[in-house]
Amino acid sequence: MKLVKNAAGRMVPLKVNGQPQIPFKGIGKFKPGGGTASVKINSCADFPDDGNKVVETLKVALKKAGLRDGMTISTHHHLRNGDILTNYLFDTIKSMGVKNIRWYPSASFPCHEHLLRYLKDGTIHHIEGSMNGPLGKFTSEGKMKGTGILRSHGGRYQAVQDGEVKIDIAVIAAPTADPFGNATGDRGPSACGLLGFALADSEYANKVIVVTDNLVPFPCYPWQIQGNNVDYVVKIDSLGDPSKIVSGTTEVTKSPDRLLIAEYVAEFLEEAGIMRDGFSFQAGAGGTNLAFAVYLKERMKAKGIKARFIRGGSTKYLVEMLEEGLTDFILDGQTFDLEGVRSMRENANHVNTSPFTSYNYHGKGNFASIVDAVVLGATEVDLNFNANVVTHSDGYLLHGIGGWQNCLFSKCTILAIPSFRDRIPVIVDEVNTLVGPGQLIDVIITERGIAINPRRKDLLHKLKNSTLPVKSIKELYKEVIDICGKPAKPKTDKKKIVAVIKWVDGTLLDSVYKVK
Amino acid sequence: MKLVKNAAGRMVPLKVNGQPQIPFKGIGKFKPGGGTASVKINSCADFPDDGNKVVETLKVALKKAGLRDGMTISTHHHLRNGDILTNYLFDTIKSMGVKNIRWYPSASFPCHEHLLRYLKDGTIHHIEGSMNGPLGKFTSEGKMKGTGILRSHGGRYQAVQDGEVKIDIAVIAAPTADPFGNATGDRGPSACGLLGFALADSEYANKVIVVTDNLVPFPCYPWQIQGNNVDYVVKIDSLGDPSKIVSGTTEVTKSPDRLLIAEYVAEFLEEAGIMRDGFSFQAGAGGTNLAFAVYLKERMKAKGIKARFIRGGSTKYLVEMLEEGLTDFILDGQTFDLEGVRSMRENANHVNTSPFTSYNYHGKGNFASIVDAVVLGATEVDLNFNANVVTHSDGYLLHGIGGWQNCLFSKCTILAIPSFRDRIPVIVDEVNTLVGPGQLIDVIITERGIAINPRRKDLLHKLKNSTLPVKSIKELYKEVIDICGKPAKPKTDKKKIVAVIKWVDGTLLDSVYKVK
Repeated sequence: MKLVKNAAGRMVPLKVNGQPQIPFKGIGKFKPGGGTASVKINSCADFPDDGNKVVETLKVALKKAGLRDGMTISTHHHLRNGDILTNYLFDTIKSMGVKNIRWYPSASFPCHEHLLRYLKDGTIHHIEGSMNGPLGKFTSEGKMKGTGILRSHGGRYQAVQDGEVKIDIAVIAAPTADPFGNATGDRGPSACGLLGFALADSEYANKVIVVTDNLVPFPCYPWQIQGNNVDYVVKIDSLGDPSKIVSGTTEVTKSPDRLLIAEYVAEFLEEAGIMRDGFSFQAGAGGTNLAFAVYLKERMKAKGIKARFIRGGSTKYLVEMLEEGLTDFILDGQTFDLEGVRSMRENANHVNTSPFTSYNYHGKGNFASIVDAVVLGATEVDLNFNANVVTHSDGYLLHGIGGWQNCLFSKCTILAIPSFRDRIPVIVDEVNTLVGPGQLIDVIITERGIAINPRRKDLLHKLKNSTLPVKSIKELYKEVIDICGKPAKPKTDKKKIVAVIKWVDGTLLDSVYKVK
Repeated sequence: MKLVKNAAGRMVPLKVNGQPQIPFKGIGKFKPGGGTASVKINSCADFPDDGNKVVETLKVALKKAGLRDGMTISTHHHLRNGDILTNYLFDTIKSMGVKNIRWYPSASFPCHEHLLRYLKDGTIHHIEGSMNGPLGKFTSEGKMKGTGILRSHGGRYQAVQDGEVKIDIAVIAAPTADPFGNATGDRGPSACGLLGFALADSEYANKVIVVTDNLVPFPCYPWQIQGNNVDYVVKIDSLGDPSKIVSGTTEVTKSPDRLLIAEYVAEFLEEAGIMRDGFSFQAGAGGTNLAFAVYLKERMKAKGIKARFIRGGSTKYLVEMLEEGLTDFILDGQTFDLEGVRSMRENANHVNTSPFTSYNYHGKGNFASIVDAVVLGATEVDLNFNANVVTHSDGYLLHGIGGWQNCLFSKCTILAIPSFRDRIPVIVDEVNTLVGPGQLIDVIITERGIAINPRRKDLLHKLKNSTLPVKSIKELYKEVIDICGKPAKPKTDKKKIVAVIKWVDGTLLDSVYKVK
């Protein structure tokens, strides 16, 4: 495998799974040529006049869709850890004797441990998407037949749009659908909120199968997925376990350290002048982020400030802000709890977005760079503000990229992280895996202090007289190393790449190596 | 110009404006090969990070978009006869000295008479879209430099999607928009309802310019047009004359003959068993159609029947049915009056549709064929149930096709027409221009009687004992000719084709000839 050093100084292969790759060239430096993917032109003459595309079983649908060895099959992850369909899908593919599938999920969850057997027996050749938990361990140990490819949510859209990944069959879990294939996630027994992660799949896959456990008469509205893109509809008993689809119990952290981090973030936004009328922010669903939203809300109320929009992952905390008039809109990418689902169904200003609107770097702009501040996590961040979100200190793949890379384009990107976890430093000299270039990371907020990227002279200036514990990243690093000691580098085989990290523009940012 | 006889027995050219053409092969017979149009891949690196795409003037936007001779410029017609922007656009193009534009509107209106000067001076080479009123007369007299091409709303989407028409610059009138280019038609001083006719343009044009007279902070929501597809945003004083955008005075006919037709249609739907719980219908905005909706509503209330959906063009009459609970949904393609605009803004079940969802024949099905009954007009219908909707008895182009061809795929297509107009028969031996093949036209309802297509034995059977005046088309024809005499054929030059009629699949259905 021939490796080259990319613009971030990372070694990446020139080919992955036989396909040529472009090394990362720097942020905004790669200029895509050519045109978007062309899809086969269909004709209504080949579809039922009455709009009824229902077929008996998923197996029949897969047969009609022409399933065969080596195809690319895509799924979405809006059912999260409650997803039953994907496992059932691969059970079905296995029963049909089909091999060497490229699985193209928008993310994977612990419930997909079931698929290990199909990675082992050759039903699945490799995964392009997040390889978490057991799938990550399997991949990290070098057991997957092909090389994993990790993309951000925006990068996944970009890869499909640009024709880099040609999806043969998309299988879309739809909590509610009609016989024509119009589908929504905001209602039904397996309601999950929205279905934006399946948008690219529905638009560009050669064949699209909608699977639902709640078939309603035409028209299913809202139609988050448009039946005009759908070939077959299948009704099954249950898509998933509702208690695991939306936890319903997302709660703020109780850890004093993390509450402190959350408070620092809220105070930082106020002192930096970011929290002002008409501003916008995004925060994920982790306990720290939820606490941040609660603290920020208090500050907004105290100052009489209203946001123009909040970007979700939505939770009950964001919904409260919408319903209390503290923001005009929630622009939501996925709903994390039942209140999010309810609000999306009931509040016109709780808006369904997609990786196309929010994250696709190969569009005419996207929402991510318009957001005033985003609060994210990381597994590691280094002295150059480079960050890692996929591998752990032991080198194992733990997480997907999600929207994380895309969010870095926010006007102010904040990593809200503990300075160490289980006595292992989070602030390190150099990240094991580069997922986010430091150039885009503006502020690190830990329980021990706040480091502002020296590139952001404006922020340094604004915080000059702050009571917040602003330090240099080196000071923070030294404090952490003094407590934890310098961590051992993970034991990996630099000759064996098990997965690669794509940048938002489709170029290769870094490699993930086999753990010895 | 080499002509061939197509499957409908009509003479059509093999080339139009230098582009090769496929003659009509029969309904559902043409199988499109190849793939959909590919568009240039963009990069966020080339767009402003803050999402602000506003440029000073339309001229600046056109320059930045690379406007040059021979380009294809598209516009939509949601501003109807109140459209100021399109005239201003061509004034601007003229001022830039650019020539030979192919104008690709979704329709044209009398207000576009202003553009005659640009057809004369070579600024506009030819129109692909409806050529009504003065533009129709100009075209019919053989004065347009190129050959006109008329497509249905669905055919327009199909032509763009399939790459048959490559739009260089789309100029989208947006009654409300934000600096990123998100746009909606349902609010603002020039509110027109929806913007579905510009959907294909926004998705496939190389450059997209949104022009608005109501710029709001990001995000403009609903975003009927997505800013992610938009290159430039321009603010002007006024897009159009609100009193002409939505008439606000659409009223039912007062003509006793047309009221009788409307009553026949409503009674027919009931007797044929089409008016039943969960049914669907579509009716346009003409006075007869409005009266039909009123009569049907009375019958539905009397029988306690509720529709599943009504397809618009919406009017206050349809909105009343929605708000009185007589239908679950209005699936709207364009709003014809202020009540339609209000309802689209206020009623979640008044749904914004597009030619993609409703009419595109080269999709995986569309809505048109799901509709139980559609009530349409026509300028002529003949003994074979073939119908014409574009030319008048004197051969002049009068109307565009609109969604008319697409609607013919309904489960029951009814032409509700007077048997003659101004003593000129509407029922003729053979239509001057074939726009709708008789195979798809099920019922002709006139003030003198109802003719059911002999292909529809089921309908003939259901109406066997009806008190409605069911007759053969020949009987109807004879009655009309007995009153009016046989009309003279229009005086046209069969050697000079001024426009062609596309079928919904992009093949050539008929030719329109120069009027002598």
